[in-house]
Amino acid sequence: MSIEVIAFDADDTLWHNESIYVEAQTQFKQLLAHYHSPEWIDEHLYQTEMRNLAHFGYGIKSFALSMIETAVELTEGQIIGADIQKIIDITKAMLAADVDLLDHVADTLANLQDVYTLMVITKGDLRDQELKIARSGLASHFRYVEIVSEKSPDSYAAILRRYDIEPAQFLMIGNSLRSDILPVLELGASAVYVPHQLTWVHETGDTPVGEQPGYYEIEHLGQLPELLKSLDR
Amino acid sequence: MSIEVIAFDADDTLWHNESIYVEAQTQFKQLLAHYHSPEWIDEHLYQTEMRNLAHFGYGIKSFALSMIETAVELTEGQIIGADIQKIIDITKAMLAADVDLLDHVADTLANLQDVYTLMVITKGDLRDQELKIARSGLASHFRYVEIVSEKSPDSYAAILRRYDIEPAQFLMIGNSLRSDILPVLELGASAVYVPHQLTWVHETGDTPVGEQPGYYEIEHLGQLPELLKSLDR
Repeated sequence: MSIEVIAFDADDTLWHNESIYVEAQTQFKQLLAHYHSPEWIDEHLYQTEMRNLAHFGYGIKSFALSMIETAVELTEGQIIGADIQKIIDITKAMLAADVDLLDHVADTLANLQDVYTLMVITKGDLRDQELKIARSGLASHFRYVEIVSEKSPDSYAAILRRYDIEPAQFLMIGNSLRSDILPVLELGASAVYVPHQLTWVHETGDTPVGEQPGYYEIEHLGQLPELLKSLDR
Repeated sequence: MSIEVIAFDADDTLWHNESIYVEAQTQFKQLLAHYHSPEWIDEHLYQTEMRNLAHFGYGIKSFALSMIETAVELTEGQIIGADIQKIIDITKAMLAADVDLLDHVADTLANLQDVYTLMVITKGDLRDQELKIARSGLASHFRYVEIVSEKSPDSYAAILRRYDIEPAQFLMIGNSLRSDILPVLELGASAVYVPHQLTWVHETGDTPVGEQPGYYEIEHLGQLPELLKSLDR
């Protein structure tokens, strides 16, 4: 059985995303520069995000609430209202940021959509992800869009059932070993890892994947058509 | 053609929800009681929510960011860090609140699920709604769950297409004229309005529905089986 459905992660696979968080976090550190070193702020913000993940889940609004909580904590409550407002304004700018496509994405999708069923599987805030797909100009390439709250073997299995796709027909492409690659390989489907220069530490981990069946790695999406040809042999 | 698929709104149709916001808003007003009257705070918070809807969308995290922004504005930046933290704690309590079913819901769903395909169509935060459905104990009654960012004629039409449902086979049930009733009637499907004692003013409006074809109104879900029998005649 050969690949018929190719699913793409969105953030940092189709378009830049982590860079928006990095930029916001830089502004956040400038706001608190009188109180603490950048390293200390980074570390505490990450701890707050991890602690809040069970409450808030992923996405920009969750990040905003964690920035605010971190600011209160690291200033021992001394943060002024105007600076809280600045954090909210940073958040609004993040939500309104342009969708900046990664290299080769538009060409590759246009090229593949006649041969394969293409879909997006992304996690995070429903509305934010919908708006980005709409603004990306890529929507017409995708037959299906699935926005999930967590990427686990169960959530992938539910999507395959919903569209009646066999694991052997399914290929997932993304920049997160934790979210895009490992759960898909666990189902017996195939996955292509496309590392991104900036990847949130929560999504990396040092899990070795190596020579598992169904695992592939490319440097950018422009190499995907070539890889697919080699799989068809 | 007769009704085959019954879709339920979730918040304030299956379980209490607005009461959680009302309780949170009461605590928020107590926090700002030194600065302003409850009426003034209510009015400004609602204005902030409406202004932020385009940025943040619906849900508890959006409400949290609007409470924080309102607190900064109404205290002219004088709000202290400890009170900002209290707003975040109010938010976490909202997200962790028990799912409190409305009367007759569990019985009615158990009763109907053998005869009809039941689904949930709800809007708001993806993760929050998924967790509530899981915690409600109702998940097994529903064949499909659809969480959307906005309930419009287009979003309902997309769901009907996805599951190959004709409008004449489809009945939507909910407490919001704006979100659950009017867009569904516009598609030529049927809708049952079940008013809830507490409904967010954004969801009400004074749109007259009256005697439109396909429009029904009941007082609680316990009256639904009787209504369905009358439709089959």
